[in-house]
Amino acid sequence: MADKAALYREQIEGAWEKFLPAPLSEDPAGLVIEAMRYSLLCGGKRVRPVLAMAFCELCGGDPTSALPFACAVEMVHTYSLIHDDLPCMDDDAMRRGKPTNHRVYGEAMALLAGDGLLTLAFETALSFEGEPAKARKAVKLLAQCAGAQGMVGGQCIDLQSEDKPMTVELLQAMDKGKTVALIHAACGMGCMAAGAGEAQLQAAAKYAHGLGMAFQLRDDILDVEGNAEKLGKETGMDAIRSKQNYVSLLGVEEAKRLVDKYTEEAVLALEAFPGDKSFLRNFAESLASREN
Amino acid sequence: MADKAALYREQIEGAWEKFLPAPLSEDPAGLVIEAMRYSLLCGGKRVRPVLAMAFCELCGGDPTSALPFACAVEMVHTYSLIHDDLPCMDDDAMRRGKPTNHRVYGEAMALLAGDGLLTLAFETALSFEGEPAKARKAVKLLAQCAGAQGMVGGQCIDLQSEDKPMTVELLQAMDKGKTVALIHAACGMGCMAAGAGEAQLQAAAKYAHGLGMAFQLRDDILDVEGNAEKLGKETGMDAIRSKQNYVSLLGVEEAKRLVDKYTEEAVLALEAFPGDKSFLRNFAESLASREN
Repeated sequence: MADKAALYREQIEGAWEKFLPAPLSEDPAGLVIEAMRYSLLCGGKRVRPVLAMAFCELCGGDPTSALPFACAVEMVHTYSLIHDDLPCMDDDAMRRGKPTNHRVYGEAMALLAGDGLLTLAFETALSFEGEPAKARKAVKLLAQCAGAQGMVGGQCIDLQSEDKPMTVELLQAMDKGKTVALIHAACGMGCMAAGAGEAQLQAAAKYAHGLGMAFQLRDDILDVEGNAEKLGKETGMDAIRSKQNYVSLLGVEEAKRLVDKYTEEAVLALEAFPGDKSFLRNFAESLASREN
Repeated sequence: MADKAALYREQIEGAWEKFLPAPLSEDPAGLVIEAMRYSLLCGGKRVRPVLAMAFCELCGGDPTSALPFACAVEMVHTYSLIHDDLPCMDDDAMRRGKPTNHRVYGEAMALLAGDGLLTLAFETALSFEGEPAKARKAVKLLAQCAGAQGMVGGQCIDLQSEDKPMTVELLQAMDKGKTVALIHAACGMGCMAAGAGEAQLQAAAKYAHGLGMAFQLRDDILDVEGNAEKLGKETGMDAIRSKQNYVSLLGVEEAKRLVDKYTEEAVLALEAFPGDKSFLRNFAESLASREN
């Protein structure tokens, strides 16, 4: 499993130069490209692109054929982190152990770098070399999952939650948008690259829901129990910002129980697929116990 | 001509509800949708969508078939205005005679509304009902024109120009990105909706260049000579911000001469199309003499 994830990651890291414009110092617009590259190429777990490739392979496709979709989802994820870190949002100084985009390039350039990455995500996804109808369907899923009824909607709930009491229901609606939606896009687009049918798309959505919810719960647990050095960011931030999360609402034990429950849901959803499900099962389980 | 533009605009205004999510007050993410609607539905000249429809018709297509492309380009234009008006960019208070998005919804929500509109633009464009291959080609053009090598790149040049002396060459590179690129997307996507060939796409790009440059020059002239009430925004802003523009670099007479030159270039490019070119000729000429 570690080997397969490493192989996928190697293929993902090898694909960026195909999709990203080169940084030309003589180009007057070169600085925004540099800022885009700074955030995209500074590592990260690449959870979403790995999922896109793994689901493509699980559905019988060549996983590298899903690279345009995989890289596109990671670009959307990266833009959302850049905008989320801005002073008018979370005002974060560090991300993945390095200064956040606006701390390096300034607020306005970071705003543009996010806009540029979101736009490039669609260009990248549309470079998928399979049938145009598959590309259209997959890119539409990306837009739906990333937009106001998906990720942007989750961020809207997050923003408003600062002013009103948080409930578990609202937290779930927020995380369905902020975390599950883009993971859903990754899994679904991977299936679509391989030409999977409706039943498998539904199963991928269930897997994404279980894994995404578990992922977010684990994030909240790490914010309380985690090690700042391993995480590459400060801990206890939700408490400092007076933000409610699963741990503050339910307690750490119940949060851990829910991580297991959602991870099990994800693993169960894999039954809809023939073939070797071990990678995606192990992937869900390793995310549920991750330390960063 | 006035009648045809009015008909196009009526069809554009009638199409929004098909593409925009309804504002549901009980939806916890409803506020970002409200903010998106606020900026998109507050009028404007709809120059870009009118161009998309007119080029579709000029190439022998049903102009209403281009509505998904037309509305998508306007969404990209609107998101760029929302982000441009933010405090970290131009910090504008008024737009089209109304308070800017962040003055109504706050900075963070305006940021999200822009992100939501950019994302919705791609979803909208992908709802084009013609061949998937046409949709893919058109939406890729939109992404290229809107991204770091198009509109976002132009904004990057704009940002950096605050710190260094402006030249006419840099101003042209900036306007090619900020203004021409999206007009190019509109004209090109309109042609693509009708299945036009390469020669016509090239001609549409030339028209877009001429019209876009003339449009920007006229903007600079109006910033000096215009009437704030008619414009719906303050004048003299470039001088207040110590920003160089065509008028400050070349003088108002030379700027006016260039408006005529670029408009003529646009009109000449129409020769590549058979059929009635009067609407697009008159459209370019009326933009060149507009008062708002």
